[in-house]
Amino acid sequence: MSLTRPALKLTHKGTSVLLAAAVEAAEAMGVPQCIAVVDEGCNLMGFIRMDGSRVLSIESATRKAMTAATTGQQTGNIAPDKALLLAEATSGRMTNLLGGVPLIVNGHIIGGIGVGSGTGEQDLAIANAAVSVFQKHIEEGQTA
Amino acid sequence: MSLTRPALKLTHKGTSVLLAAAVEAAEAMGVPQCIAVVDEGCNLMGFIRMDGSRVLSIESATRKAMTAATTGQQTGNIAPDKALLLAEATSGRMTNLLGGVPLIVNGHIIGGIGVGSGTGEQDLAIANAAVSVFQKHIEEGQTA
Amino acid sequence: MSLTRPALKLTHKGTSVLLAAAVEAAEAMGVPQCIAVVDEGCNLMGFIRMDGSRVLSIESATRKAMTAATTGQQTGNIAPDKALLLAEATSGRMTNLLGGVPLIVNGHIIGGIGVGSGTGEQDLAIANAAVSVFQKHIEEGQTA
Amino acid sequence: MSLTRPALKLTHKGTSVLLAAAVEAAEAMGVPQCIAVVDEGCNLMGFIRMDGSRVLSIESATRKAMTAATTGQQTGNIAPDKALLLAEATSGRMTNLLGGVPLIVNGHIIGGIGVGSGTGEQDLAIANAAVSVFQKHIEEGQTA
Repeated sequence: MSLTRPALKLTHKGTSVLLAAAVEAAEAMGVPQCIAVVDEGCNLMGFIRMDGSRVLSIESATRKAMTAATTGQQTGNIAPDKALLLAEATSGRMTNLLGGVPLIVNGHIIGGIGVGSGTGEQDLAIANAAVSVFQKHIEEGQTA
Repeated sequence: MSLTRPALKLTHKGTSVLLAAAVEAAEAMGVPQCIAVVDEGCNLMGFIRMDGSRVLSIESATRKAMTAATTGQQTGNIAPDKALLLAEATSGRMTNLLGGVPLIVNGHIIGGIGVGSGTGEQDLAIANAAVSVFQKHIEEGQTA
Repeated sequence: MSLTRPALKLTHKGTSVLLAAAVEAAEAMGVPQCIAVVDEGCNLMGFIRMDGSRVLSIESATRKAMTAATTGQQTGNIAPDKALLLAEATSGRMTNLLGGVPLIVNGHIIGGIGVGSGTGEQDLAIANAAVSVFQKHIEEGQTA
Repeated sequence: MSLTRPALKLTHKGTSVLLAAAVEAAEAMGVPQCIAVVDEGCNLMGFIRMDGSRVLSIESATRKAMTAATTGQQTGNIAPDKALLLAEATSGRMTNLLGGVPLIVNGHIIGGIGVGSGTGEQDLAIANAAVSVFQKHIEEGQTA
């Protein structure tokens, strides 16, 4: 086992693609959103708050992104009796609210996107739409 | 005096213009930056972390934006003997580091932009470049 | 410009090598230390608190590691008039205390080590000793 | 009653034994983990984050260790209706998540180990495996 290992990092170009795709999807749906993108270390890469979205969703959208990045899974699948315990044990950063989707490229978890200000289903749909656009760019050879 | 007053709010469109202009200026300068935009309530509107910029600048760039938005002035002009007192009294949010510039339209302070990860002078130059692009859009009637 | 970029991550094996080397150097010097290792995202990778070292150095050693990781430079070189401003603007995480050294492999900043509980010079010597052992392992082809 | 009392403290040697045993058990199980060791004062003694484990588990693993150290019992046995009240009242540090095990030697609670990033059952199994190795060392006269 070696002292370092190869990895893949999300770029700010990739972040901009995600934010723009999420804004476009939210406008098409008519639901203003807060959209956050974090890297695999749960550090903020990008953020946009749309006109009319909720101020307190700044934090919850960011935490959805963190949760997806740290677990490598969509948010919302934690058993109810564990969800609040995990939230408490992580100072609220691990959330079970819908709307967080991981970014996975070539088997590497490179971050997560979190969307908040609509219903959970709307938030998730926007996050998924953004990730689809991102993955399509990747497949078209613009990246990895 | 009436119970309400008209105001002007920064939009997410305006935020995107600021972020894109700052990224372009930072790329031209060859200095990766963290760029934060807040509204007049010091709440985050937008953010981008460029590849190679400093993780700990996520927070300091945001605080520069907050300081510019709350004072309506560029950061860096507080008397040295007051700067740390103000920082302490605001849990570190009021900062005297260079790189925060207010957004003022028609006499309304509508927010601030903060840039961090280079030297203070570089940070300020990028912030000013972004605000210039923003003001030019305003003057060309694309916004206000 | 692509949506992702290749990177290098510190492993827990590499972290263990750093911690063991630092403990050995500290024992040889007769100065008990707190030793922290973080990755490039400033997230904790490893830590050890030696018998007789200072409890409050748990936090300062960790912040030295963060500062080295985020700047890619040894701690202690910030101009005095900026050091406290940067500390305030980062909730204390950016520190100018001696004892933080970055981990750089093949041009990638992969993290930092921070040592605290002795004099600044002792802390720095221990950190440098640990990084030397780490780099020697790398050069011997056990890694990158 | 006298003004002082004899005590037993966990050493950094003991901490290293615990961390190494936990890493070995986690590798055998194929589940990467965050592992934290705290002393009886709930202050961090040691930590290791294994490759592929969750970033947000840094905090939850540490809190499991704290909870075990402060109660002298395995985590997970608080009545559900009290668990969240205790979490709230301790800023999230008292957790009912599985994976925290106390370190008790000669009747002295000397600390706790917390493991997090797998299922609760996996976390607990790793923590127990590490404590078993530790206790075996003690019984063989290598420590106490």
